Amino acid sequence: MTKLKWGMIGGGEGSQIGPAHRLGAQADARFEFVAGALDHRADEGRAYAGRLGIAADRAYGDWQEMLAGEKARRDRVDLVTVATPNATHFEITKSFLEAGFNVLCEKPMTMTVEEGEEIVKVVEKTGKICAVNYCYSAYPMVRQARAMVRAGEIGKPRLVVTNFSHGHHGDATDADNPRVRWRYDPAMAGVSGQFADCGIHALHMASFICDDQVETLSADFASTIPSRVLEDDAMVNFRMSGGTVGRLWTSSVAIGRQHGFDIQVFGETGGFRWASEQPNQLIYTPVGGRTQIIEKGEGGLHADAQRLSRVAIAHPEGFPLAVANIYCDLADAIAGETRDGLPTASDGVRSMAAVHTAVASAKAQGAWMDARPSIFK
Amino acid sequence: MTKLKWGMIGGGEGSQIGPAHRLGAQADARFEFVAGALDHRADEGRAYAGRLGIAADRAYGDWQEMLAGEKARRDRVDLVTVATPNATHFEITKSFLEAGFNVLCEKPMTMTVEEGEEIVKVVEKTGKICAVNYCYSAYPMVRQARAMVRAGEIGKPRLVVTNFSHGHHGDATDADNPRVRWRYDPAMAGVSGQFADCGIHALHMASFICDDQVETLSADFASTIPSRVLEDDAMVNFRMSGGTVGRLWTSSVAIGRQHGFDIQVFGETGGFRWASEQPNQLIYTPVGGRTQIIEKGEGGLHADAQRLSRVAIAHPEGFPLAVANIYCDLADAIAGETRDGLPTASDGVRSMAAVHTAVASAKAQGAWMDARPSIFK
Amino acid sequence: MTKLKWGMIGGGEGSQIGPAHRLGAQADARFEFVAGALDHRADEGRAYAGRLGIAADRAYGDWQEMLAGEKARRDRVDLVTVATPNATHFEITKSFLEAGFNVLCEKPMTMTVEEGEEIVKVVEKTGKICAVNYCYSAYPMVRQARAMVRAGEIGKPRLVVTNFSHGHHGDATDADNPRVRWRYDPAMAGVSGQFADCGIHALHMASFICDDQVETLSADFASTIPSRVLEDDAMVNFRMSGGTVGRLWTSSVAIGRQHGFDIQVFGETGGFRWASEQPNQLIYTPVGGRTQIIEKGEGGLHADAQRLSRVAIAHPEGFPLAVANIYCDLADAIAGETRDGLPTASDGVRSMAAVHTAVASAKAQGAWMDARPSIFK
Amino acid sequence: MTKLKWGMIGGGEGSQIGPAHRLGAQADARFEFVAGALDHRADEGRAYAGRLGIAADRAYGDWQEMLAGEKARRDRVDLVTVATPNATHFEITKSFLEAGFNVLCEKPMTMTVEEGEEIVKVVEKTGKICAVNYCYSAYPMVRQARAMVRAGEIGKPRLVVTNFSHGHHGDATDADNPRVRWRYDPAMAGVSGQFADCGIHALHMASFICDDQVETLSADFASTIPSRVLEDDAMVNFRMSGGTVGRLWTSSVAIGRQHGFDIQVFGETGGFRWASEQPNQLIYTPVGGRTQIIEKGEGGLHADAQRLSRVAIAHPEGFPLAVANIYCDLADAIAGETRDGLPTASDGVRSMAAVHTAVASAKAQGAWMDARPSIFK
Repeated sequence: MTKLKWGMIGGGEGSQIGPAHRLGAQADARFEFVAGALDHRADEGRAYAGRLGIAADRAYGDWQEMLAGEKARRDRVDLVTVATPNATHFEITKSFLEAGFNVLCEKPMTMTVEEGEEIVKVVEKTGKICAVNYCYSAYPMVRQARAMVRAGEIGKPRLVVTNFSHGHHGDATDADNPRVRWRYDPAMAGVSGQFADCGIHALHMASFICDDQVETLSADFASTIPSRVLEDDAMVNFRMSGGTVGRLWTSSVAIGRQHGFDIQVFGETGGFRWASEQPNQLIYTPVGGRTQIIEKGEGGLHADAQRLSRVAIAHPEGFPLAVANIYCDLADAIAGETRDGLPTASDGVRSMAAVHTAVASAKAQGAWMDARPSIFK
Repeated sequence: MTKLKWGMIGGGEGSQIGPAHRLGAQADARFEFVAGALDHRADEGRAYAGRLGIAADRAYGDWQEMLAGEKARRDRVDLVTVATPNATHFEITKSFLEAGFNVLCEKPMTMTVEEGEEIVKVVEKTGKICAVNYCYSAYPMVRQARAMVRAGEIGKPRLVVTNFSHGHHGDATDADNPRVRWRYDPAMAGVSGQFADCGIHALHMASFICDDQVETLSADFASTIPSRVLEDDAMVNFRMSGGTVGRLWTSSVAIGRQHGFDIQVFGETGGFRWASEQPNQLIYTPVGGRTQIIEKGEGGLHADAQRLSRVAIAHPEGFPLAVANIYCDLADAIAGETRDGLPTASDGVRSMAAVHTAVASAKAQGAWMDARPSIFK
Repeated sequence: MTKLKWGMIGGGEGSQIGPAHRLGAQADARFEFVAGALDHRADEGRAYAGRLGIAADRAYGDWQEMLAGEKARRDRVDLVTVATPNATHFEITKSFLEAGFNVLCEKPMTMTVEEGEEIVKVVEKTGKICAVNYCYSAYPMVRQARAMVRAGEIGKPRLVVTNFSHGHHGDATDADNPRVRWRYDPAMAGVSGQFADCGIHALHMASFICDDQVETLSADFASTIPSRVLEDDAMVNFRMSGGTVGRLWTSSVAIGRQHGFDIQVFGETGGFRWASEQPNQLIYTPVGGRTQIIEKGEGGLHADAQRLSRVAIAHPEGFPLAVANIYCDLADAIAGETRDGLPTASDGVRSMAAVHTAVASAKAQGAWMDARPSIFK
Repeated sequence: MTKLKWGMIGGGEGSQIGPAHRLGAQADARFEFVAGALDHRADEGRAYAGRLGIAADRAYGDWQEMLAGEKARRDRVDLVTVATPNATHFEITKSFLEAGFNVLCEKPMTMTVEEGEEIVKVVEKTGKICAVNYCYSAYPMVRQARAMVRAGEIGKPRLVVTNFSHGHHGDATDADNPRVRWRYDPAMAGVSGQFADCGIHALHMASFICDDQVETLSADFASTIPSRVLEDDAMVNFRMSGGTVGRLWTSSVAIGRQHGFDIQVFGETGGFRWASEQPNQLIYTPVGGRTQIIEKGEGGLHADAQRLSRVAIAHPEGFPLAVANIYCDLADAIAGETRDGLPTASDGVRSMAAVHTAVASAKAQGAWMDARPSIFK
């Protein structure tokens, strides 16, 4: 297996989505992070790239420089991730595709439909890959849901109901905070605020699981914080090509919700529910039967769900990153930085002392015994 | 940042814990996977190492060969992970430590207390790092719990109650399956079955969060499937040095539980609960007050919790691996393998069409409109 | 305290809502059930009334007979509950009000707006009470929510989102079952199916908690089972007088949902969520703060919530009816019918033996002891 | 159906358990509350009885007076509930049984095993009923669990794990509060604190569902608040006659738990879990299969569960008491006391206006329309 070469545009220090891309691209070690134009402040971007292990000649100051630099190399990157502000996605994505690079673009891919259609045409012309990071669709149990629909296990979908709502922009006194404000300003965010930011994840998910496309829709938008020009809350009703009825609610003023992304699909012979905060389970009910809990990693999952289950059934989503935290602390410790939470041989020997004491106690009808290893008494 | 070099012993193809180590070690790209003796079947191990990108001269047939090979190199590995059958942990760990390598050993570190004490002494003598993979302690909200105890935020802990129970060995008709049977056979598993396998995670967690050590204990073991010599269910009561009362239940016959690892700590002025299946939240109650939900990534977390929060508050544990799934599919696609679930530019343009249609519909009082991009009509 | 006299029209044997009215009216013993026209089949209604303890002269064959009979008495009923098919609510309610009776009418109160307005006028004219059974509004934590809104504790409500969806009519093969079919037949159900049946509970709740009224709305109805004339799924967007945005989803084809009635209200300074399946808790989040769980019966609830908390904090909703089940079995047992689940003195003495044995065992460091009372050894 | 006559000893104004007995005894109107000695302060008890509708000649000053008074009547009570302080249960229960009354005694039935055995003998001699209020066993889904065990649906129970823990006595600064203190004072509470108070509910439940009896046990008690003589936390391991392993944790210092009563039973071919805070569901997993949610009121429940399901499937436990709250407010309103939360005809007509407007809007493709009835415009 040869590692592919990977570069990123945007995702600089402190960015919200950058870490997820780096963890995601590197976890399987199929990509090597070799190039980047990570920050609109060229120097900061180069310095950060260096700290992330990128060679100086591939730590670029901006995307144009990166495009020129990579085009000129024989060992050019196999994939470029575009994680810049939304308004720049189109130009960057198009330029890299036309230069023969594969691209993973953050959502929204473009600001206008026309731009989007142009990207599709460029893809057709160049034969390059342009993926969009609708990453929720890659959870194993979402794949299971889609496969079940395709296999007819809930019959024709009648109804899909999805919510993607949070409350992180619900504080009017924080509305002028630049990190929040731009999202509701047409000059920076385009025609839509919350629906373009979160709603399209939910809309993609509805299409993805139902294996169908939205045909018509009716929307109700609200700016519940009056100073906002763009909507911070939206309800969109839709119909899919196959007649499925859709209902989508998205909000950024739902105070108390951290990340309420959930989807329910109801078909002729069954229904199910998946929620991003409980991603290991698909809650399925056959019509007239009892609700069943389908677990990530259980036997008999559809192939695509099985393929993307990364760890065994007993290990919930999130487990590998807890292991990653152990490795981070180890890397720090090897570099000489003390990490007092790192479990050590002392912990290991204490465990064995507890095991042997428990065995002896159980044999002695539960007698209380000293459980400390002798070196720690 | 120079990447550290990493090797693994065990964790071959189909192993349960191997993938979590590879994802964990590689996600942050601070380690490069350069050496391995991955399987007790030497040829399979070498072939698998090759498929994982390890050079042929560092794809070893067994750990002795790896020890000799790495010792002889100038660019020897900085860290060795030991993920072999339990009975071999001691010898391998000790040998690598004595040869000057840092080690991350899977639990249980050893089979006997004496072996464990010997490892501690070797660590003292060599100054090398020997960590044990009690990885649950590395979840951000577990670190938050520990920090809250240390800061006195729940007062002195009075009581800790922890469960680590599953039902994956509850089928008596499957008890002779070799993958299950060895765990209850003293010849292979040593003195303890379920307590040594899962219970010690919970016991470590209790010590970790309470920042205290177990002093005495009383145990009740049961082999609820009679053919088993070792226990498949255990209750251990304990007392910590500071007087904290402990209660630990572990079981492998709790049919229906996938991974019931949870811990509750009750102190003089508050209590909290954390569960591995809901890892983003620490449920905290101050005495006489309302229960509060502390969220991973919220403002004001203790430093160690903040440091290990890998993604922003809106993104639950598990999110980066969903992104990793996207990157896996991309790597396949770049290699020419079709991945029909991968979101593409077509999805991107459909989203933009939906956004613009929704904006228009909302302006037109919710009028129903065609939401398809023209290229897909 | 003099008991009030109570009568019911409808609610015959096997009715869905009848038992809830009898349990509700009698639980506090402030009403005595003395009269009824319980079934459209006069003889069955009279017989059932007799079995429920109603004297023969007040076991009426139909509501007209009951109206005449009760008007003629000096000890006439103080309250009449109308739990008949929807289309008859108007005529019965109006007739009883005009005759000077107080009425509790099941929802929907009438079939048309004009009828409803007429009822309002009759109430104004007669001074009698006409209540409608929007009983969800009487849960203590719903009252707490309303009181919090009134007290300004979440600021002005910006957004209310409510769902009342179930899947009990999701089986197309059962759609012709008369118990289901009439709900979607305009001849029997009027202009609306699911929205009139369940949606109005949710709409009332939104008004109730926000202490405001719906002013305008926009609706999307669907008959997802094509043979249905009336809607089995509806989305209604609305605006309240004070500007609050509302979103209401109701469905009867949401297979797998038993009773998904929940409501979320998001205001300027906080939000909360209540769900009928978890009625003891109001989940509240102040803007910028942590989510808190407000528990039924906790100290410091608003007066109306405290007044309607029926049992102490440790006893969840539903507890008194478990006690009622004990009393039912006792009544059967006194009547000579064996009820083998009824806890008896044997259970009582076994408990005491366990208590004393546990005390002795704990004193003896956990020694195992026989826990049986001597009479059962 | 003749109503039975019922009297209560204890349960005076402000008592914790009294309201649950009155609601429970009266909800089905099979008992009429006709006599009581409700308070150890004779005058307060008589006055409160009067307010509850008891005739003056049956409002007794103490239990001895009640015993004498009821014995002398021809229309004596059919059932006496004993809800007095624990230490008096034995004498009162025995006296009433010997005088020929049926008794429902609060738990614990007696203070000693000898007293308990004496009650059993009195029951045998007199043929009267003596029930103990282990009311959790009367939830429909607990009955379902027991019936499933009896029918062999989970095979022989191997393991039962139950918790009944709360945090209401976790505040050391409140430990001298007389309402709390007596529970940990041997002079008033006897030999055991928390285990006798809550633990025996859980122990009874384990026996009840497993249809078996505790044979031996081993206990670990702790007084985590040092001033307490009796235990506020206990772990009891036990074995049943049929070999089932049992584990029971009970605590009153589990800060943050309101009412953590749950039970899990794991058998040879399946397991299940029930929790008092989610009483409508029994979570069941067949060995090797998916977890299923069994709902109160679903088709095909065992007979005893079906019999005690009080309301239809869509109505959760607690629903009838919400209806009871409506009736309470109605009784107040009839008595002239304003109850502003009571839904009225105005609410009824607003609902109908919303229904008709929604129908019209849906027909007009979601056009926004005024939803107010004309009388409220």
